[in-house]
Formats: sequence, C-alpha cells, structure tokens
Amino acid sequence: RLFSSEKLTQRDHSLPNPSWSKDLRLLFDQFMKKCEDSSWKRLPSYKCESSQRVQDFKTHFLDPKFMNEQTVHGQLFTRSFEDGLGFEYAMFCNDAEKRIVCLFQGGPYLQGVPGFLHGGAIATIIDATTGMTALLAGGIVMTANLNINFKRPIPLCSTVVLNSQLDKVEGRKFFVSCNIHSVDGKTLYSETTGLFIKLDPDKRLK
Amino acid sequence: RLFSSEKLTQRDHSLPNPSWSKDLRLLFDQFMKKCEDSSWKRLPSYKCESSQRVQDFKTHFLDPKFMNEQTVHGQLFTRSFEDGLGFEYAMFCNDAEKRIVCLFQGGPYLQGVPGFLHGGAIATIIDATTGMTALLAGGIVMTANLNINFKRPIPLCSTVVLNSQLDKVEGRKFFVSCNIHSVDGKTLYSETTGLFIKLDPDKRLK
Repeated sequence: RLFSSEKLTQRDHSLPNPSWSKDLRLLFDQFMKKCEDSSWKRLPSYKCESSQRVQDFKTHFLDPKFMNEQTVHGQLFTRSFEDGLGFEYAMFCNDAEKRIVCLFQGGPYLQGVPGFLHGGAIATIIDATTGMTALLAGGIVMTANLNINFKRPIPLCSTVVLNSQLDKVEGRKFFVSCNIHSVDGKTLYSETTGLFIKLDPDKRLK
Repeated sequence: RLFSSEKLTQRDHSLPNPSWSKDLRLLFDQFMKKCEDSSWKRLPSYKCESSQRVQDFKTHFLDPKFMNEQTVHGQLFTRSFEDGLGFEYAMFCNDAEKRIVCLFQGGPYLQGVPGFLHGGAIATIIDATTGMTALLAGGIVMTANLNINFKRPIPLCSTVVLNSQLDKVEGRKFFVSCNIHSVDGKTLYSETTGLFIKLDPDKRLK
C-alpha cells in the first residue's frame, strides 16, 4: 500500500487522465506538437514536489520549525484533489519568449456561485502560472502582489487558456502579466499583473 | 447512503471540529461571546449552499445551460476538503460596522512552497471573506478586482485572522478592504483591496 501511494504521489499530473474534456485533450495535443522543435517544453507537475529547486528551498530558506508533524504531509494545493474534481491543468513554457501557457479545466469542487468557478480558484491557477513564469526566470520566488481583474465568470468544468509573460526584471523583482481566454480566444475572462520577489539567500523565512 | 451523505453536506462547517487548533478554538469562543449581545453574528457555512440567496441566484441570473450533469455536483471550493486538510474557518459579521472577521486555519493540502500556504489559498480565503462583506451589504455580487499584497508567507497549519471592511458603495460597486494578521496581532501577513459588482437583475450570466 505504501509503495502504491508513493507511486501515486509521484505521478506526473500534467499528463492527460480520463477526466479531461475533449477541449483540454485537443489543446494538449496541439502544444505537444509545438514541443517537437523544442521551442516549447511541457512542465511536469507532482503532488509532492521533489525537484532540486524544492530541495534547495528546504535547505537554504526553510526554518526547520515549519516542518512539523502536520506540515510534513503537505501537498501542493493545485494537485490536492482527486482526478477531475479540482484543478486539471498542463503548463508549457517557451524559454526564449519568457512565456508560459497553462491549459486549465476547473472541476466541480472549485465552485463559487452555482455553475461558475470560485474567484479564489481562478486566483490560484493564476498564481501558479505567473509564479512558474517568474520561477523559470528567477529561481525561488514568492508572490508579493497579484492584481486580478475578473472580467467575466468562468463556467464550471469548462476549459480555458492562461497566457503568462515575464514583462520586466528589476533586481530581485519579477513583473509578470497573465490573461485568461476561452479556447476559441473570443472571450477574455481575466487580466492580471503579478509581482514576485526572488528570495534572499542570506535570509531564512520566519 | 444517500441520506447520510445529504446530512453530511448540510453540516454547518463553521462550527468547531476535531481538526481545529487550540488557537482557532480560543478565538472562536471569544467571538461567540461577542455574539451574546447580538452586535456580532456567526455566519453558518455549507458545502452546498441552499440559502434563499443562492436560490435567487439560480432563478434570476443562471442560464440553465450551466447546470449540466457535471456542474450539478458542484461544491463550494472553500468547503470541498475533508476536515482539517483544507480551509477551516468561521466568519463573524458586525452589521453596524459593515465588518467581517474570518478565523482561518489552512491545512496541509493548501501548500505552496514547503511549510507555507499557497498564494492561491490565501487569495481564496480573502475572496471568500471580502465577497461575503460585499454580499451582506449588496446581495448577489461577483468579484471584479482583487489587489493582494502578500507581505509575509503564512505557515501551513497555523491560525490567522482576516479583518474585512466595507469602505465605500458607488451604485452597483462595492469597495472592500481586508488584512490578515497573526493571532497575537503582531504580524501583518497581507493587505487587500477588493471590488465587487452587484449583478444586474436584468441580465443573466453568459
């Protein structure tokens, strides 16, 4: 049992599963095609991150007092739902253009008013996407500001596309913008600017 | 089985459960005391909202096409985790002062970087609290803007206090501000302004 649950947590959740809609599958296949000439890359995603970057964070920034009995069972928020119920998404990055595209399907457990995504769920996938855009450019960063304009409500269980872009770097500050469109590109759901700060290697988080 | 799951969904999740920390219990008891002279009121909270307000929303604003087989199983995002794993919170409102206080403990499934809450989880509890502040003043509202400054990371599984305040009303626009402090009031974790728009009763959401 331990072995299988360990395998489960290490599954790459950015690959298609049976809960994915036709829209999400089609977009995923399109972006996989773009990956063939290696201008675009798919970013794998796990419930419990074990990447070198996360190990570095634990070593250099995390005061051991925060890793107690409760927090050791921590799971990445965006991957903590069963397949199809929460955040289904895949991110693709274009290093040369400093862009990330996130294909996102928000499941029934992300509801705000009936039939639509919760504003917090939208903010979450925006934070994940813009944060990854800053992280690819700057290493270990934390969100300092998110300014989100919600233009139209996003229907529950629909597929949408996030486009995120690194706009500017000033010292340890990374400025990122992001919008969310419908699959056909005709509906703009939200526009965001985000500011991320690269952690100071001389200071542990308190 | 149907009956017991129905009872489960109708449990009031703003009441203490065994996963609540000592900090959260103590604060809850303090606010329950403030409720005795009815200046403060506790706001009940359910996985599947069935309040008059939600029924009104479904009747007047929701195009039936959004209530399909998938979305009918929708659950309120902030109540869609098992006890203790996600959002544990209780809100109290002061009608005269147009304020809401939200006592919040973010569980291990809300993790961002190891040991700390995901920015999206923080945005979610902010959206829920500021949205409720606007809703109590304006009826059915939707989030139009959230501008969140994240001042310090919030440790996973800790208890924090959100203070939300209605600042201004301009026609159908409701301006709300909100901050998050540690239980002892000494640490400011975040500051937010939010704009909420009261839905136009002549227009259905599309």
